[in-house]
Amino acid sequence: MRLVVIGGVAAGLSAAARARRIDAELEILVLEQGRAISYGACGLPYYLEGRVKDLEELVVYTPEYFRNERRIEVRTGARVTAIAHARRELALEGERVRYDRLVVAAGARPAAGVPGADLPHVFRLHTLEDAARLKQYLDEKRPRRAAVVGAGYIGLEAADALRRNGLAVTILESSPWVLHRADAGLTAAVQKQMERYGVELRLQTRVDGIEPGRVGDVPCDLVILALGLHPNVELAAEAGIERGRTGAIRVDERMETNLPGVYAAGDCAEAHHLVLGRPAWIPLGTTANKMGRVAGANAAGRRERFSGIVGTSIARVFDLGIATTGLSVEQARQEGFAPVSARITAPARPRYFGGKPLTVELVADRNTGRLLGASITGEEGAAGRINVAATALHARMRAEDFEQLDLAYAPPFATVWDPLLVAAQQLVKLVH
Amino acid sequence: MRLVVIGGVAAGLSAAARARRIDAELEILVLEQGRAISYGACGLPYYLEGRVKDLEELVVYTPEYFRNERRIEVRTGARVTAIAHARRELALEGERVRYDRLVVAAGARPAAGVPGADLPHVFRLHTLEDAARLKQYLDEKRPRRAAVVGAGYIGLEAADALRRNGLAVTILESSPWVLHRADAGLTAAVQKQMERYGVELRLQTRVDGIEPGRVGDVPCDLVILALGLHPNVELAAEAGIERGRTGAIRVDERMETNLPGVYAAGDCAEAHHLVLGRPAWIPLGTTANKMGRVAGANAAGRRERFSGIVGTSIARVFDLGIATTGLSVEQARQEGFAPVSARITAPARPRYFGGKPLTVELVADRNTGRLLGASITGEEGAAGRINVAATALHARMRAEDFEQLDLAYAPPFATVWDPLLVAAQQLVKLVH
Repeated sequence: MRLVVIGGVAAGLSAAARARRIDAELEILVLEQGRAISYGACGLPYYLEGRVKDLEELVVYTPEYFRNERRIEVRTGARVTAIAHARRELALEGERVRYDRLVVAAGARPAAGVPGADLPHVFRLHTLEDAARLKQYLDEKRPRRAAVVGAGYIGLEAADALRRNGLAVTILESSPWVLHRADAGLTAAVQKQMERYGVELRLQTRVDGIEPGRVGDVPCDLVILALGLHPNVELAAEAGIERGRTGAIRVDERMETNLPGVYAAGDCAEAHHLVLGRPAWIPLGTTANKMGRVAGANAAGRRERFSGIVGTSIARVFDLGIATTGLSVEQARQEGFAPVSARITAPARPRYFGGKPLTVELVADRNTGRLLGASITGEEGAAGRINVAATALHARMRAEDFEQLDLAYAPPFATVWDPLLVAAQQLVKLVH
Repeated sequence: MRLVVIGGVAAGLSAAARARRIDAELEILVLEQGRAISYGACGLPYYLEGRVKDLEELVVYTPEYFRNERRIEVRTGARVTAIAHARRELALEGERVRYDRLVVAAGARPAAGVPGADLPHVFRLHTLEDAARLKQYLDEKRPRRAAVVGAGYIGLEAADALRRNGLAVTILESSPWVLHRADAGLTAAVQKQMERYGVELRLQTRVDGIEPGRVGDVPCDLVILALGLHPNVELAAEAGIERGRTGAIRVDERMETNLPGVYAAGDCAEAHHLVLGRPAWIPLGTTANKMGRVAGANAAGRRERFSGIVGTSIARVFDLGIATTGLSVEQARQEGFAPVSARITAPARPRYFGGKPLTVELVADRNTGRLLGASITGEEGAAGRINVAATALHARMRAEDFEQLDLAYAPPFATVWDPLLVAAQQLVKLVH
């Protein structure tokens, strides 16, 4: 019995490792088209910043580790050109590989660029190679003015890293929002933080092309393209694997595609969104790993399910933690909910512990009281608290239940009324 | 219509303030027997430490604030000697006060001491006055060796504060556990931390009396008695207010006692424990405030309920956050569950962000998979994560649901597999 996994980063390796743990006999082969496997792409901005000294630090496991410690064969530079499912066969350049079970974890790639994207001063920040090239450019050319196109996580984190290195930075974002989230409060918080640190953030600014020395009217000698991702679905689609409405591969709760024995996981696939109640495509390493584990378990003969996501994420922008989960008010409205929201700012800890202000916005449905989402920004305490909200979303908690959560208190850590509960008290008034 | 509240610290003032917000016409009187109201007793160890410079910093509101801003009359030094419920009357020294609704928020007091507790070098750390007296003693007498009797939160935090001020400290605890929790792992973690900072922690060491210059065989010129609390129920009991099995005042989910129109809240009352499924007495400021709010709302004519607690708490011991929620393995066993537990240690953040190790223990019931409790210790990230576990306990989440929580990840905040999820993965194996 042979399991083949296409993709050797988060989902693919999680699937392979899990399958091995379940079935010691299974033959497992991972095919990765890139040169490195098992790396944390989320660490790339910190390499740019200078905190990560060597890209090797971002590589968690090597192919040798998997071969020797897990008896999982990993081949890098192995590009699959076709899936012939009727014959249970993959085509690679110059060879064919047979499989019994297949996990497609082909990941995502940066969205198509704009005219001029191939100019030598234009970079993306998706792979280790991207980061190495960019770092070399920074060291050798010493650019002074950067334009970052796109205000998603990568764009914001790249802007932060470049600014810390002394560059003048302008971010250009086509939508009225940052972080791909229709959220006025969050956008304002990021805008303010950017201003404070001397980064210009221009919203609703479409970039139609890049010229040498300028993007639109922004002069620059470095451009970072951070226009978001596109799921790698072409190979799967050609093999008859169906895509969902999001454009990513459709899977059931076992991560199985419409082809029996073929699973998909990670950034190329959809996941069930527990607040939306339908599949969504939110490519993140955390979700990729969880989906990969479930895909690997099922491919190895178990019956496991992935319950779904609630859309949690966090980024640091100049020491400000910016965390979200579930839906913003605007998103909730678009989804047909009747959203109400409460937004408060309160210290994360008592004054005598130097508590920094934390802004919490909670969103609920007016009719049912159900909590729908949260955003939390602050220089301390944002991560832990967004996870409380995320857990409440998993549990379909109502605002009035959330308000009474038994959260931990001691002065070094929190205030006696946690900001989450203060926000919830406001929210409950709007629900009744 | 007149609402009288006995007690002006956490629960009492929360009740009064909530009642005022609901009913602008209600006459509200708060009777506090001490000299100060609305103070954060949890801050006292940090006054001892020197971080809080003035005890006034711990006072959140003054009687004048309540009088002028909330139209709530607050009397300090007002000791109620009897409740005559048939006449809806309270007896104070030299006068009688009529009520229509009554909230008993009489708090708790330090448990009875031991012979020698009245010696001049023996202190408690319960009120502002206690802290002021102790601070004066430290400044004037410059004691060099302290014995702390009791290893609950106050004992551990006091030991920390004294050690930071250069004293030699020995903690004497009669039980085999710290923090009133039958939890071997947690006790070992605290023991280790105490050793690291040069504090001797002696478990299973009963103190039968204090002599000048020594406690048992421990020489000392300062003794802190931190033997836990006792609910102030005598006044209520004499008035026919029933107590529960814990000895604290029994209330229903509306915080009403057996006497109609008489509510109880805070450290004098029981709260429903959602994991135990029965009332418990765990005196904490967070719970007191929540109970007070509900009592105040119902006393003002609303119908609200307090859903209950899960037993969450946290303390800092020499920079180590020590957090617990729900039940330990040993407690779960005593309660008739079939507990299994998983304990892991993993960095709270990636190495390049200097992530400190975090130890997570999760407890579940083997038969149902239900999560029963958690303990988390670490120099960073303990508070946020214990709150995730607490939220899961509120929602009666199972280990396999917990394992798939969509928690936030970015390198400045967490690892891609959060330590909570790593522990949950281990736990799930033991449940199936």
